[in-house]
Amino acid sequence: MRIAIDAMGGDNAPGLIVQGAMDAAAQWPDTELLLVGDTSVIEPLMKGQKPSNITICHADEVIGPDDEPVKAVRRKKGASMVVAGQLVREKQADAMLSAGNTGALMATGLLVVGRMDGIERPALAPMMPTMDDIGILTLDLGANMDAKPEHLVQYAIMGSIYRTKVHGLEKPRVGLLNVGTEAMKGNEMAKAAYALLEQAPVHFIGNVEARDVLNRNCDVLVCDGFAGNIMLKAMEGAAGTIFTSLKEAFSQTLLTKLAAAVMLPKLRPLKKRMDYKEHGGAPLLGLNGLVVKCHGSSDALAVKNAVRQARTALQGQLIETIAAEINGK
Amino acid sequence: MRIAIDAMGGDNAPGLIVQGAMDAAAQWPDTELLLVGDTSVIEPLMKGQKPSNITICHADEVIGPDDEPVKAVRRKKGASMVVAGQLVREKQADAMLSAGNTGALMATGLLVVGRMDGIERPALAPMMPTMDDIGILTLDLGANMDAKPEHLVQYAIMGSIYRTKVHGLEKPRVGLLNVGTEAMKGNEMAKAAYALLEQAPVHFIGNVEARDVLNRNCDVLVCDGFAGNIMLKAMEGAAGTIFTSLKEAFSQTLLTKLAAAVMLPKLRPLKKRMDYKEHGGAPLLGLNGLVVKCHGSSDALAVKNAVRQARTALQGQLIETIAAEINGK
Repeated sequence: MRIAIDAMGGDNAPGLIVQGAMDAAAQWPDTELLLVGDTSVIEPLMKGQKPSNITICHADEVIGPDDEPVKAVRRKKGASMVVAGQLVREKQADAMLSAGNTGALMATGLLVVGRMDGIERPALAPMMPTMDDIGILTLDLGANMDAKPEHLVQYAIMGSIYRTKVHGLEKPRVGLLNVGTEAMKGNEMAKAAYALLEQAPVHFIGNVEARDVLNRNCDVLVCDGFAGNIMLKAMEGAAGTIFTSLKEAFSQTLLTKLAAAVMLPKLRPLKKRMDYKEHGGAPLLGLNGLVVKCHGSSDALAVKNAVRQARTALQGQLIETIAAEINGK
Repeated sequence: MRIAIDAMGGDNAPGLIVQGAMDAAAQWPDTELLLVGDTSVIEPLMKGQKPSNITICHADEVIGPDDEPVKAVRRKKGASMVVAGQLVREKQADAMLSAGNTGALMATGLLVVGRMDGIERPALAPMMPTMDDIGILTLDLGANMDAKPEHLVQYAIMGSIYRTKVHGLEKPRVGLLNVGTEAMKGNEMAKAAYALLEQAPVHFIGNVEARDVLNRNCDVLVCDGFAGNIMLKAMEGAAGTIFTSLKEAFSQTLLTKLAAAVMLPKLRPLKKRMDYKEHGGAPLLGLNGLVVKCHGSSDALAVKNAVRQARTALQGQLIETIAAEINGK
């Protein structure tokens, strides 16, 4: 099994990305890691300790966080992210990981790795945080702003297979993001998607309201990228504002500072739980290979965990299973 | 000035609705209040103290919280809410208030009071809470799930006039709910709305992300009812979950209970601030008269405040101003 890693993408690249790759290589000797980036930068970081299951694939260029995604992918053919995508397209790698520019990674998925036959819209599928720390795979969260009802059905199928293959869920519950739980609720798109999802080969449990997501009332949540992003940012905004206000309230007087000493250790896990950045790499589903978006602030542990996640998905034949289901084979 | 009040709608009807009407009648002797409902129920509640500026308009029926909105409005012609709507349509009242079934009130607005000429979609416009307690008038929040770009322009015009007439804002800032602040962000609808809003006779400040709403970075926020509802419920869900977790954390040990004694008085205003139910009645804009939705749990003070709100709007000639702007007169 071969996994390509974009060594140059993310806030902590290349240092902690290379470190994470070395840790992963040590833990899983059966897995070959293709570290993509500037050899003259990567090699010294390994301090002569290069594991035999790491190969450096040289790439001259880097796509930065402010690069315009599609333009960057089209023009910077030698960028580490694009080269990693080419390795997947040419079947020299089974999967690729990157903590770089999200938009550029989606463009790399579409333009370099390529769409899977039968899939109209690949989808970005991060885990939305839930209070029990397990999370809900939510798609699409940002790859496409507009979606048709039939796209949501494909999201549901891909998401269900992912939860089964990667997280071992036998019968993942699929919910449709909507404004009420009754069947006839929502806009025209949601109503049409509801009708299609009832017929789809997934365990559809009906509409799910944004306010119930934190209670994990489903395992896979499908939505168009616009509504999903609004939900995510509204939750982030509310949580961020409340935690800021709490901090202010705790710093007002000597008594409140004493209360803070008691309470803050108990509240930190809550704050962390609400942070979707804490919840692993997000797969980009519906491509001819596995592409995983790691958070921009990924450290060595996050990279190692993303390798674990990709390994599990590949061992479960995620891509082949999705292709078979989508194309009715 | 005559204001019809649905005496039978809401969790506290008719008792606290009648009480609120009596308080309002005492405060504003120049305003005639038409209290609509069952005379045999309302009269005893007044204990022989009926103010001269209150008239009881008898209505036999009541629309309940579980009634199917459109069906109820069509069939229960004698319902208090429908009769109040008829008073507005027949110009016997300038405005109506109800704390009853929201869907039925929107149906009453459309089917009984009637759409204003030139308005394609009336919009429900509650105040979204903000941390400074001032709020953002947000429309549409629920009257129509689907919206076209040109509907959002009408929402922006109506919302701006409302903020000026009712809240005295000279140049209300209009924001478009979107997934990023840059002009080209969003789905097809949002992009088209952005282009139209730039040309509209409002003070358009561009895209607003859901996570910035609590910081009141605009005065009027326009969105389709689906996205708006997702935003509202995501915020409610996040806030509710955090406050529940806080309560649990505060009740764990003797020390945390002591911390709670110090902190809870400081945190209660924060919780209240996050609750959109605290923010007054929501106008239904774009009708041939003023219709105000009071929250279902409205008490006497909420009813009196809604009368104040309606008075201010009527004194400012809200409806006439909207009609003139929409129809270019």
